[in-house]
Amino acid sequence: MIDYRSWRHTFKLDPDKTIGDDELEALCESGTDAIIVGGTYGVTYDNTLELMSRIRRYAVPAVLEISSLDAVVPGFDSYFIPLVINAGDADWLFAPHVSGLKAFGQYIHWDEIIAEGYLVANPDSGVARLTKARPIEGAAEAKAYAQTAAKICRLPIVYLEYSGAYGDPAVVRACKSGAGEAHLFYGGGIRTAEQAAEMAALADTIVVGNVIYEDLQAALSTVRAVKR
Amino acid sequence: MIDYRSWRHTFKLDPDKTIGDDELEALCESGTDAIIVGGTYGVTYDNTLELMSRIRRYAVPAVLEISSLDAVVPGFDSYFIPLVINAGDADWLFAPHVSGLKAFGQYIHWDEIIAEGYLVANPDSGVARLTKARPIEGAAEAKAYAQTAAKICRLPIVYLEYSGAYGDPAVVRACKSGAGEAHLFYGGGIRTAEQAAEMAALADTIVVGNVIYEDLQAALSTVRAVKR
Repeated sequence: MIDYRSWRHTFKLDPDKTIGDDELEALCESGTDAIIVGGTYGVTYDNTLELMSRIRRYAVPAVLEISSLDAVVPGFDSYFIPLVINAGDADWLFAPHVSGLKAFGQYIHWDEIIAEGYLVANPDSGVARLTKARPIEGAAEAKAYAQTAAKICRLPIVYLEYSGAYGDPAVVRACKSGAGEAHLFYGGGIRTAEQAAEMAALADTIVVGNVIYEDLQAALSTVRAVKR
Repeated sequence: MIDYRSWRHTFKLDPDKTIGDDELEALCESGTDAIIVGGTYGVTYDNTLELMSRIRRYAVPAVLEISSLDAVVPGFDSYFIPLVINAGDADWLFAPHVSGLKAFGQYIHWDEIIAEGYLVANPDSGVARLTKARPIEGAAEAKAYAQTAAKICRLPIVYLEYSGAYGDPAVVRACKSGAGEAHLFYGGGIRTAEQAAEMAALADTIVVGNVIYEDLQAALSTVRAVKR
């Protein structure tokens, strides 16, 4: 069982994107607390398996954030199951979980499963279009969403996802307040050490994603910013 | 804090229906473990307050199952908040909880709040039409729904609601299996002592509703059937 509550920094790798061996080594050996594997489009069993096996050369914990039932690859330390609390389409609320459990429930090791209350905060993102995400209007509403995830549903993780955009610190602070005992992940638009430090001061764990594929040195600088 | 886990039998009273003082006394003094106040249509602040104050003459625990933000009356022992896991309309999934928390979150005593994973099993019921409930197709799917409520979300209660129809014992058994550590309520169509005994053997707590208004003696017989 992974100890995600101690994590301060993670990298998120997308199986649908290309990363070289040297770059992958630099990320896995950077001092980050974990690698999260996940993406919205183009995630397949084969590309997830390939990325997992490459990450497994290193000691860093590796988690799969499940976005497709076709791409659930064994061998990760743990599996994050997103539940998009602000999805506007019921097909993206409980329906995938029910289908998945109906098909694979008997094979599940429940101690490897951690559900996340996912808040899709960037209306222009692919995941927002896919799930018809409802806009999160301001800090008070963000807090109510976080409370719904953490206190109505008793989800252990609230994940605020700005998907490529850098978030509003007031919204992150409100989510932290609403999340109570749940653990708050923040992801989206972190491209510099300063941004990493700012969001790490508000959330429990930050997730650094896209910048990995655009500026590896900037990505690596976010580890030092959080860990120092 | 109420101890719903010890309950075996409850009556559900609808604020929109009429019940005489003698009948109410018979129900409250019957030996049932609790009175649940709730309904789908016509529930108002005034009729909820009136019913609550009449129940409060007796020592039996009283719980409000919240179906409308306009009818949240203080003074109950606890508040059950349904989350309709098989709702087909996203407006009936998290949206009401987010609205309610945004408006009233600061007044909430979280230790009085218990969220229920609600499974609407009778497609012909008012609540099914209101929430555009998706049909629960058989026992395997019912188990997956119960697991989604109890293990993906960590809801403490799974509530299988057949709303006027008597349920399929195989579906109740599957929900109990899927609910794991969560507490299973069964409600719907219990009109005789035999039916009460059958469902009480499968679920943790049974809820007896409509028959109260049609055949009080039959309703009272369900308490003895469960308690003996």
